[in-house]
Amino acid sequence: MDQRLHFITLATRNLDAARAFYQDGLGWEAKLDVPGEILFYQVAPGLLLGLFDADKFAEDLGRSAAPDVSGVTLSHNVGSPEAVRRTVESMASAGGTVLKEPAQGKFGGIFHAHVEDPNGVVWEIAHNPGWRINDDGGVELS
Amino acid sequence: MDQRLHFITLATRNLDAARAFYQDGLGWEAKLDVPGEILFYQVAPGLLLGLFDADKFAEDLGRSAAPDVSGVTLSHNVGSPEAVRRTVESMASAGGTVLKEPAQGKFGGIFHAHVEDPNGVVWEIAHNPGWRINDDGGVELS
Repeated sequence: MDQRLHFITLATRNLDAARAFYQDGLGWEAKLDVPGEILFYQVAPGLLLGLFDADKFAEDLGRSAAPDVSGVTLSHNVGSPEAVRRTVESMASAGGTVLKEPAQGKFGGIFHAHVEDPNGVVWEIAHNPGWRINDDGGVELS
Repeated sequence: MDQRLHFITLATRNLDAARAFYQDGLGWEAKLDVPGEILFYQVAPGLLLGLFDADKFAEDLGRSAAPDVSGVTLSHNVGSPEAVRRTVESMASAGGTVLKEPAQGKFGGIFHAHVEDPNGVVWEIAHNPGWRINDDGGVELS
């Protein structure tokens, strides 16, 4: 199995709230939007984030109960502590809930915050001076 | 907020089982491996998958209980139905649990299977003839 992810799909109870947050609030553009079913956003080269109706998500896995999203954090890195603050303000204005205000983290000089989207998906917004992406897409962590 | 994901972090109860599955079983190479704490794998250009000790994951979010991963599916696309079958066999040999045997899906001519990793993370292995990645990393869905 190649070391490669092509889709991340999240069980989503309220697709309209997701659309209002990501699209109307943050200005993201959907790759595909099937109301009541699924919303796809491209979030990295070759990678789509799928927000899938929670009942259909459960059905697809052969499970009876629509699950909440738990045990997962999505991180978005920005270039400075100030950009962390600005991004968190944008997310709060768009309807996100700030779980952890921007602050110095415990490791590696990271400055970060946590914001929950309207369906309980947790985003970490971070400035990490030891992280970078090379021209070839390779990630370096120091 | 740019439409961009840089890390996906999953609460992981058993990091040794994760390492045995992805590294020893599937041949993946870690970008960083801090035993008892976190394992990072690069899974797309500019994107790392982080498997983070579940207790530390909870602590980082200021929550008391270590969460299980739920409501998320990670998808890996391959070039043919036969490659779906081969990949699912590799994952089962590496210690994965097959939740749904390879079969035709409901939508878009997709042929897929679901396999759970040793920590309950669900992978969809799929052949989707209507999906492709362009040279610039843009994804097309038809």
